[in-house]
Amino acid sequence: MPTQISGNATESPSRSPMTIGLPLPRGDARAKACGREPYAADLFPENLLLAQALRSGLPCGRLLELDLEEARQIPGIVAILTAKDVPGSNRQGIIHKDMPVLVEDRIRYCGDPVALLIAENKEAIRSAMSCIRIHAEPSPGVFDLDEAMAENAPLVHEDKPGNMLAKATIQKGKPDFDACAAVVEGWFETPVQAHGFLETEAGTACLLEDGTLRMEVSTQSPFRDRLEISHALGIPFMQVHIHAPSLGGGFGGKDGATVQCLLGLAALHCPGRSVKMLWEREESFVAGYKRHACRMHYRLGALADGSLHSLHARLWYDTGAYAHLGPEVMELGMEHAAGPYRIPHNLTEGFCVHTHTPTGGAMRAFGVCQVSFAFESMMDMLAEKLKQDPLELRLRNALHRGDTNGAGVLLESSTSLAACLEGIRNHPLWQTRRQWQKEAPPFCIRGTGLAAVFNAAGYGGGVRDAAIAKIEMDVKGHFIVHNAVTDMGQGNSSAFLQIAGHILRQSAEALSLRQPDTRSAYPSGSSSAGRTTYTFGKALISACEELASRLINRAGLILFLQNDEGLVLEPGRVRHEPSGRSVSLEQLASFMSLEERVCLGQFIAPVCREVPDTSRGFFIGFPHVIFGYGAHLARVEVDTLTGRVQVKDYLALTDGGAVLNPSMFDQQVQGGVAQGIGYALYEDFITEKGVVKTKDFTTYLMPGSLDLPDILSLAPPVEEEESGPFGMKGIGEVAMNGPLPAIANALRDAGCRRIHKAPIMAEAVLGSLENR
Amino acid sequence: MPTQISGNATESPSRSPMTIGLPLPRGDARAKACGREPYAADLFPENLLLAQALRSGLPCGRLLELDLEEARQIPGIVAILTAKDVPGSNRQGIIHKDMPVLVEDRIRYCGDPVALLIAENKEAIRSAMSCIRIHAEPSPGVFDLDEAMAENAPLVHEDKPGNMLAKATIQKGKPDFDACAAVVEGWFETPVQAHGFLETEAGTACLLEDGTLRMEVSTQSPFRDRLEISHALGIPFMQVHIHAPSLGGGFGGKDGATVQCLLGLAALHCPGRSVKMLWEREESFVAGYKRHACRMHYRLGALADGSLHSLHARLWYDTGAYAHLGPEVMELGMEHAAGPYRIPHNLTEGFCVHTHTPTGGAMRAFGVCQVSFAFESMMDMLAEKLKQDPLELRLRNALHRGDTNGAGVLLESSTSLAACLEGIRNHPLWQTRRQWQKEAPPFCIRGTGLAAVFNAAGYGGGVRDAAIAKIEMDVKGHFIVHNAVTDMGQGNSSAFLQIAGHILRQSAEALSLRQPDTRSAYPSGSSSAGRTTYTFGKALISACEELASRLINRAGLILFLQNDEGLVLEPGRVRHEPSGRSVSLEQLASFMSLEERVCLGQFIAPVCREVPDTSRGFFIGFPHVIFGYGAHLARVEVDTLTGRVQVKDYLALTDGGAVLNPSMFDQQVQGGVAQGIGYALYEDFITEKGVVKTKDFTTYLMPGSLDLPDILSLAPPVEEEESGPFGMKGIGEVAMNGPLPAIANALRDAGCRRIHKAPIMAEAVLGSLENR
Repeated sequence: MPTQISGNATESPSRSPMTIGLPLPRGDARAKACGREPYAADLFPENLLLAQALRSGLPCGRLLELDLEEARQIPGIVAILTAKDVPGSNRQGIIHKDMPVLVEDRIRYCGDPVALLIAENKEAIRSAMSCIRIHAEPSPGVFDLDEAMAENAPLVHEDKPGNMLAKATIQKGKPDFDACAAVVEGWFETPVQAHGFLETEAGTACLLEDGTLRMEVSTQSPFRDRLEISHALGIPFMQVHIHAPSLGGGFGGKDGATVQCLLGLAALHCPGRSVKMLWEREESFVAGYKRHACRMHYRLGALADGSLHSLHARLWYDTGAYAHLGPEVMELGMEHAAGPYRIPHNLTEGFCVHTHTPTGGAMRAFGVCQVSFAFESMMDMLAEKLKQDPLELRLRNALHRGDTNGAGVLLESSTSLAACLEGIRNHPLWQTRRQWQKEAPPFCIRGTGLAAVFNAAGYGGGVRDAAIAKIEMDVKGHFIVHNAVTDMGQGNSSAFLQIAGHILRQSAEALSLRQPDTRSAYPSGSSSAGRTTYTFGKALISACEELASRLINRAGLILFLQNDEGLVLEPGRVRHEPSGRSVSLEQLASFMSLEERVCLGQFIAPVCREVPDTSRGFFIGFPHVIFGYGAHLARVEVDTLTGRVQVKDYLALTDGGAVLNPSMFDQQVQGGVAQGIGYALYEDFITEKGVVKTKDFTTYLMPGSLDLPDILSLAPPVEEEESGPFGMKGIGEVAMNGPLPAIANALRDAGCRRIHKAPIMAEAVLGSLENR
Repeated sequence: MPTQISGNATESPSRSPMTIGLPLPRGDARAKACGREPYAADLFPENLLLAQALRSGLPCGRLLELDLEEARQIPGIVAILTAKDVPGSNRQGIIHKDMPVLVEDRIRYCGDPVALLIAENKEAIRSAMSCIRIHAEPSPGVFDLDEAMAENAPLVHEDKPGNMLAKATIQKGKPDFDACAAVVEGWFETPVQAHGFLETEAGTACLLEDGTLRMEVSTQSPFRDRLEISHALGIPFMQVHIHAPSLGGGFGGKDGATVQCLLGLAALHCPGRSVKMLWEREESFVAGYKRHACRMHYRLGALADGSLHSLHARLWYDTGAYAHLGPEVMELGMEHAAGPYRIPHNLTEGFCVHTHTPTGGAMRAFGVCQVSFAFESMMDMLAEKLKQDPLELRLRNALHRGDTNGAGVLLESSTSLAACLEGIRNHPLWQTRRQWQKEAPPFCIRGTGLAAVFNAAGYGGGVRDAAIAKIEMDVKGHFIVHNAVTDMGQGNSSAFLQIAGHILRQSAEALSLRQPDTRSAYPSGSSSAGRTTYTFGKALISACEELASRLINRAGLILFLQNDEGLVLEPGRVRHEPSGRSVSLEQLASFMSLEERVCLGQFIAPVCREVPDTSRGFFIGFPHVIFGYGAHLARVEVDTLTGRVQVKDYLALTDGGAVLNPSMFDQQVQGGVAQGIGYALYEDFITEKGVVKTKDFTTYLMPGSLDLPDILSLAPPVEEEESGPFGMKGIGEVAMNGPLPAIANALRDAGCRRIHKAPIMAEAVLGSLENR
């Protein structure tokens, strides 16, 4: 029962073809606004069972025994499963398979699942939960980086020699701070961040009579999920059938197994019945993946003219209890550690460390927004020291096409950071900043801060970044895009409709989209790394071009034309321009077989031809060849009595190559900036001795619309990215990297002492004003 | 129940990939040699009915009434149908729909069908045939060109103003014989020729419960047959499902409806039962299509140096009772009327005339072998008059790429006639001809004759010459080529296997071929015009390339490779060269869906960009842009006492572009030459006042292996044809054009007077020796 985004959700359906470059409304806007869009969390098949995991509550120790007898007697309880009921390896993990579906012995964080309850209703689960006693032996844990790296620290994974999961270096040139005219140095810390999606981790599953394990799940990686489930539960992956409806948010938190293996396990034990799992917010906060907290030490030196010369950066990422994507997040942070600048000498060291805390995972700007805070703070510190304008300093050092970036990679793809910075320079918000500062109201101070940002697009070297797209014309001449990369809300579905409409020259009403389904779409990687529109889009273009050519060919056949010259696709038909004769798509469809009406297209993203010998200890995901760039400006006002910080204006100029849809381009940037402002000022995820204290949105504050300024997004004139669909490159992540450093720099500009730790709470701001 | 050519029919199956250019054995050789290859004539489904047409026997008149009552009472007779039982238009014809399925009123030739008998067995049909009385009113007819074109001649088609079906001219420059140093002139006549295929016209049909009319039929054009049946019988063409097994010969005689509409009509009247029709040889001779008899008048002038200057040619083709392909045959003859030479001034006039005789149709070298006789005789006459060497005269005037041919068409495709003629010049059979001549045994004379030949490939302008090919990998990793262009025995199936094997790098055992089926293959035109390997081959290359790319892509996905570099297809697997890892095709297949395992490719043959303004009265099929060329040499020995002519040696050099399979190249040439020798010396199809007198192979003599010399086929170094598959162009027809003129020229060289009429029987040869 795959869902469809209706393509005719526009307010006034038009018969003109969808066109690349137009600010078309989102294809799913109406369905979502009307509550008609089905999410996994909303699915309630008939005869439903509910499943819920019992979590350890204990951050570190050994599971001894579970008293389940009383709970099993509770009416409505269908089954309570433990590790011994898991038929497969009982291990999950995208790259490192170290996370149990259900704990066998070792408890490594408070969210570790020890049992899976399956019941007819919620009440039964609640009652059962309350009467299960977990017999466990607590042991001393490591709850922060220092504890974890101390000598003889308790091990998170008893089978590993220490808590250091991964260690790597990037070395380009040889840093020499003695050769520098100015050197700055500093420590920085960034916090855990929760994705805070509207729809928490959710899904339904059913073991069908033919042995198929069918699942509708809120996931960013339906095809990979099959492998995870197969490995953990020991069933052939081709027997796992996953459908991924629209997601109520993902941001990386649904990249990797969340409910999948638990749900699959439940379904295997209740053949023929649908089982649903929907995490409450607290469970999501405790057991869901998080952005890695990070500690960084930076030393940066420049020549007298402001040219960057040497960098030494050290980065420690806290990956929590399980590996998940920890080393990959660290690697991407390292690849971006030197900022979007030319710098001849760079030594970046990365460390990824286990602690007995919730597991770090993918989140928008995957490891990069951490280093962006450090680097862009350092750039302002350097400007201050050199008495240079921070914008001009950035422009002087900005990467251009043909440069080698901080990781030693030659930039052969579009690189238009300078155009973004020039956009700031020419903008009134920048030009009037001093006047605006002077007009601060009583007891307030004002400042303007900048950040130059970049973010790699795609998986990077060593990983297959590929897609297989499918377009189908149905028997009525209507087109269906078979999306294979989840739409988390970012709007890639709409982009795909626009791409298909553009190439097939069809209007919105002639097109619909089916969300990813492993039985009717094809493996195309995850919805992550800003890659979906880029990679799947290219594959879709190829599929649509093939279908267009086929439709024209068949029309030529029906019209008895000598060849296909002069035939053009138009909304609803193929027309022969010289004669004016035409064949409707419905006629064509009735004449064509299913295999003729389906076209597949494939694409593999380019990789670096000559990988520089700069990286040591990297496994996969390095280097990248395509980056999005941006320049951000924040104007903040600080209440000197309370420490409250208000972002009054925000300007983001973004280089994403060509813009396929200006509205959606702006929305992506605005969403990223909003999430970045939350990261900078609001979101404080607190764990005490491994126990999560932030359990809902009353304590985990995310900025609402009233907390945010109007976020102005501009697309400066940039180079097209030749490898991308119509010249575009992904911008899903880059905007996330700007707010924290731009706001920190603005606070400094306002007169605060430099702030090195996020989130920047009122107390810290007040503190930074002391002795002023 | 589509048939398959097993790809592993070679004597010693090998695991090396099939390769273009190798003389691989025919894929169907073993099946055919063992009698396992199913032909339409061999099919005997269960519960079979037989159908047979009652033919008029009368060449011209009106059908008044049929006495059917007695016949209908015969046990085993299921139905006897007449024109009023035909539900549709009751008209068939590829271009001109003038031929009734069953005669309503006018009888136009002795083979016109007046009733269709359906019975449980042959005996019932025989008995019924013998007791049906046809009441018809005979009327005076026209039985040859002179009668047909006489003033106030009886009309073959009462609704047309005369018996001239079509009239056209080609004019290039303005012939001026006064400007010529030498002028020759002559009348020529060529006979009707029967295709004489082993398998006569045959098929079975059944009306299925869902309304599908399913037919297995010996046809050169299964997709067009649907349209013929649909038009004649009034059923939607998508309801007609045609399967075309291997043909036991076609040569053009199965291009167009033969049994199809009669069989369909029978099936419609006996729902659920299979009906079979298989023409006896006599019926095939009477009612089957024939090569058009032709009368030609030529006047040719050259300058003193031998350069051709002016031609005036007039051609009269006798199309018989129905139009069928008459005008198109005439047009193609006209397009070739000036031979493969540069000639600045050409006026060719063509006439296509109805008579009350069997209908002319397509046959190998479609209208061209007629004019080849005239033109190549004229070239020798001119050489004689100019006292020049006939080979050098041909070389001097031979067309090259960049020349304009006799029809005014600029030759932009490969044109290597000169290489063929030079091959003759350098060959011992040419160089030793005088010595050989002198060594004639007693009462014998010997001579050597040449012919330069050419033949257009493809349909020509105004007709869609296109194909849609399909390649499928089955669930076991075995490949199936879905042929869409009938294999008449010419071996295109083998060529397609070789093409697929070459591109997919698979060995013969990994490939099989399914013969055309309108439900699983796609419209790709007819098997005619030397187009099948060229046009379908190109489409197949495209389909196989897509599949190859997809297999490599999926292997890269399974092997978790960064991209597809270094992956190669090998027999049975895809291998990653750098690592040596591989995925078997069976593994790949189990992982791929049907829609992934099927690829379609399409191709449209090039057409002339700037059609010259030389032709008047042409409808479709002009001009052509690709031609095959050849130079033939015949050494003949004449018994001066009996007039018996023996071809002692035959040499054919052929320009077919690149050679995909040298064995099959030679076989095609040898087959064409054999058929051409039959046309020249043996095959005498006799009609007296419209009544066919040649009813079997005892009077219609076709040369057997003992009547033929070893036919030596050589492929000289020629230009590749860039537009064709691997550089090839079709050579199915060109060899047919050489034997008649080469033998006629050899007879003249031996000392006979010039012979202007074929077939060249002993009586005529004796006559040509009188007063010698």
